[in-house]
Amino acid sequence: MTVPGPGYAITARVEAPASATAAGDLAVAVGRVGGVMTAFDVVESRTDSIIVDISCNALSEEHTVQITDALDALDGVRVRNVSDRTFLVHLGGKIEVNPKVGLRTREDLSRAYTPGVARVCQAIAKRPDDARSLTIKRNTVAVVTDGSAVLGLGNLGAAASMPVMEGKAALFKRFAGVDAWPVCLDTQDTEEIISIVRALAPVYGGINLEDIAAPRCFEIEERLRDMLDIPVFHDDQHGTAVVVLGALRNALRVVGKEMNDCRIVVCGVGAAGSAIIRLLLPLAPKDLLAVDVEGIIHPDRPGLHESLRWVAEQTNAEHRTGDLRDAMPGADVFIGVSAPNLLSEADVAGMAERAVVFALANPDPEIDPAIAQRHASVVATGRSDYPNQINNVLAFPGIFRGLLDAHARGISDVMLLAAAAAIADVVAEPNPLFIVPSVFDSTVATAVASAVRKVAESDRDGDRVPVGEALAVGEETARATEAADE
Amino acid sequence: MTVPGPGYAITARVEAPASATAAGDLAVAVGRVGGVMTAFDVVESRTDSIIVDISCNALSEEHTVQITDALDALDGVRVRNVSDRTFLVHLGGKIEVNPKVGLRTREDLSRAYTPGVARVCQAIAKRPDDARSLTIKRNTVAVVTDGSAVLGLGNLGAAASMPVMEGKAALFKRFAGVDAWPVCLDTQDTEEIISIVRALAPVYGGINLEDIAAPRCFEIEERLRDMLDIPVFHDDQHGTAVVVLGALRNALRVVGKEMNDCRIVVCGVGAAGSAIIRLLLPLAPKDLLAVDVEGIIHPDRPGLHESLRWVAEQTNAEHRTGDLRDAMPGADVFIGVSAPNLLSEADVAGMAERAVVFALANPDPEIDPAIAQRHASVVATGRSDYPNQINNVLAFPGIFRGLLDAHARGISDVMLLAAAAAIADVVAEPNPLFIVPSVFDSTVATAVASAVRKVAESDRDGDRVPVGEALAVGEETARATEAADE
Repeated sequence: MTVPGPGYAITARVEAPASATAAGDLAVAVGRVGGVMTAFDVVESRTDSIIVDISCNALSEEHTVQITDALDALDGVRVRNVSDRTFLVHLGGKIEVNPKVGLRTREDLSRAYTPGVARVCQAIAKRPDDARSLTIKRNTVAVVTDGSAVLGLGNLGAAASMPVMEGKAALFKRFAGVDAWPVCLDTQDTEEIISIVRALAPVYGGINLEDIAAPRCFEIEERLRDMLDIPVFHDDQHGTAVVVLGALRNALRVVGKEMNDCRIVVCGVGAAGSAIIRLLLPLAPKDLLAVDVEGIIHPDRPGLHESLRWVAEQTNAEHRTGDLRDAMPGADVFIGVSAPNLLSEADVAGMAERAVVFALANPDPEIDPAIAQRHASVVATGRSDYPNQINNVLAFPGIFRGLLDAHARGISDVMLLAAAAAIADVVAEPNPLFIVPSVFDSTVATAVASAVRKVAESDRDGDRVPVGEALAVGEETARATEAADE
Repeated sequence: MTVPGPGYAITARVEAPASATAAGDLAVAVGRVGGVMTAFDVVESRTDSIIVDISCNALSEEHTVQITDALDALDGVRVRNVSDRTFLVHLGGKIEVNPKVGLRTREDLSRAYTPGVARVCQAIAKRPDDARSLTIKRNTVAVVTDGSAVLGLGNLGAAASMPVMEGKAALFKRFAGVDAWPVCLDTQDTEEIISIVRALAPVYGGINLEDIAAPRCFEIEERLRDMLDIPVFHDDQHGTAVVVLGALRNALRVVGKEMNDCRIVVCGVGAAGSAIIRLLLPLAPKDLLAVDVEGIIHPDRPGLHESLRWVAEQTNAEHRTGDLRDAMPGADVFIGVSAPNLLSEADVAGMAERAVVFALANPDPEIDPAIAQRHASVVATGRSDYPNQINNVLAFPGIFRGLLDAHARGISDVMLLAAAAAIADVVAEPNPLFIVPSVFDSTVATAVASAVRKVAESDRDGDRVPVGEALAVGEETARATEAADE
């Protein structure tokens, strides 16, 4: 990170002399080592000294130490203790379970628990589908991980993945009223994960797979989709793909191009890359080149992994070979979900006129967006400190809201396309710095939910929704949600 | 059930003539078929008719139909619809998941989710034990079932067990502030259940097994206890045993007997019976006879199941044989966790003076308590419509509160004995109709938690707490909690 942010925010409790210059001295000391002071709260004031809480944003853990050392080095100043606000937020966990029913009286107990509950159990035993209305299955999603690909941090295991999954659960409720629960599994065996999720499914109305390493994640998702009668969604794949598709829809509007005229390069063919390709293909781009560490994917590439076979068959109409460098010239769109600094300024300069660059590697993109902007018309990243942040929060809450409301038994690519169109069309007038809505725009989840629900209900009624119609549903619900919001 | 109760509560919306006698006519109609009217709410009043919501308690599902038929049969009365309040309470499930942290601003997101959350994940990866403070593991219990022994209803399966497990989770929060989550497994294979719970454990600070059939439940519990570094508790065993022991402590006070002078008969040696025996033995009763469907258990009984071997070895000092009838004469205490109507009036009459009878089979006890009372000095049942209800709600919330607060890595019988003493000693002056506190007595969970925590902390520090001391801890914390409450 290049700018001090709230991810490294500390509050230092400091004793300082009660002089007229004390506040200024402290602020200068923080600023001199590159910290950003965000709050100055006097806790106690005595005749000769003050106790003050100084809140700062920093760049890194080491930087927080530099800041407190700088304060401590001031004449007459003593740092009493330092609390890390990110850790404070996590104390005791970030979610809780609450009763939705009163339990104050004996009558309450008799209805919500024994003996009354027995009749509800028997009703479900008789008609298992009633669990979708009479239990939390109605509104609850499992956030399932094996901790094998936690954020960009790698294989940290189940316990260390908890803060992410709890955060995800909190976002589900905050943005779409969905109850979500962390299922962090202390196993990385594909068969065991599948059989555990299958066994847990009665509690849930949907499964959100999260931070499971590729290619294991593909098999787990596919087999669970076949096995279960509730939707299974891998956020790292489909959540990302939906937001990318939505953003691309608006980016093409901004540059005035049609999908059918576009040559697209997708760099990185892991979980996210595969899903982006799969969702792009029905929209019929002119050509699509998939590039991984071994170069452009084509059917004759030696040692092609099985999971890439379908990519090779359905992309690269011109049978190009070579590496990323060879793929870029003349491309209209670059979508990177790979690794830092793979793209050079020359690569972007060699793209077609009015090029679109999505450099989504996290935390450091495939190319510095400031450099990409010199040649591309629209640039997006995964970061919150640049315009056009591609953030899954725009997709997953609304998607599951729609699936749950439709009592959906599965999820299809057309539902995802409808969701992408809904995200795009919440932005009434896209421009180069505004191709995706803000994560705090409350109309997004509503529009996405409504689009997904419509397609899911048609699906359930046996009507297969064609791609064009799904996009129209997304557009329509986005417009309707905006109108309702005004 | 012999008295209409809230487990079968309906609200009928009725259109009736706007006459002076209408209200009276409706009440009489309900009463004539044995219903109990609990509320009469006028929804709408017109010149010639009224719309009114009539709430009634009934005996059974068929009885609710009789009641509405009786209303509908009245002249000029029409029942528009009938809602079942027990089912209404269950619509959409009984628990929800809520964020405990603010998620309003970008700063909030940066701390609770990415990028800030990454540091917390790394801290846990480095020191796994930090999950006990930085995640929901701090305060969260899994309520695990395979749906094989749901209440007294039998093997209903995972989906149909949900209303019970959700209710349990709601009680955990209501009575002890514990976050609990239903884990209803669609498998009844012992090995699979064990491996699933092992894999799920990172999320939880404790495991509450529930409604799993015997003898499978014994092996599951024992193996999980060996495997996991969090407490594993089977409520049907230990929850029941703790409340029975607490109640018995007070019952013996009421009749003025010492445990060491008592001959005890335990009828039913399933999950609850075994646990009661295991917890009774350290208190050294004069003798203990265990009786199951095949009669009194003794070491020479042919075909003795392995799980009963230890019972045979540690009970029945006089090597008695025969059936329940042969076990009862002269017994001081009868504890039944078996089946309805196994005990005759003559059996109770043949017990020792000032006998104690706990007839806990649900919903119909081993003997009608009104009959038992003719000969026994203290009678308890599992029912809420008689005095002295043995209800697990008195035990499990406080026990897990104490275990979580102690960061306990396991659970021991002395912790359970301390809990039993705490429950008993919340009742300042027991009498024949009041040997256990009310389930709504808020001091119970606090006293139990405090007793369990003290013993758990001594345990953790390597001090094995002797039985006598554990009982004293329970007594002490009950007194302290009562005093604080006054």
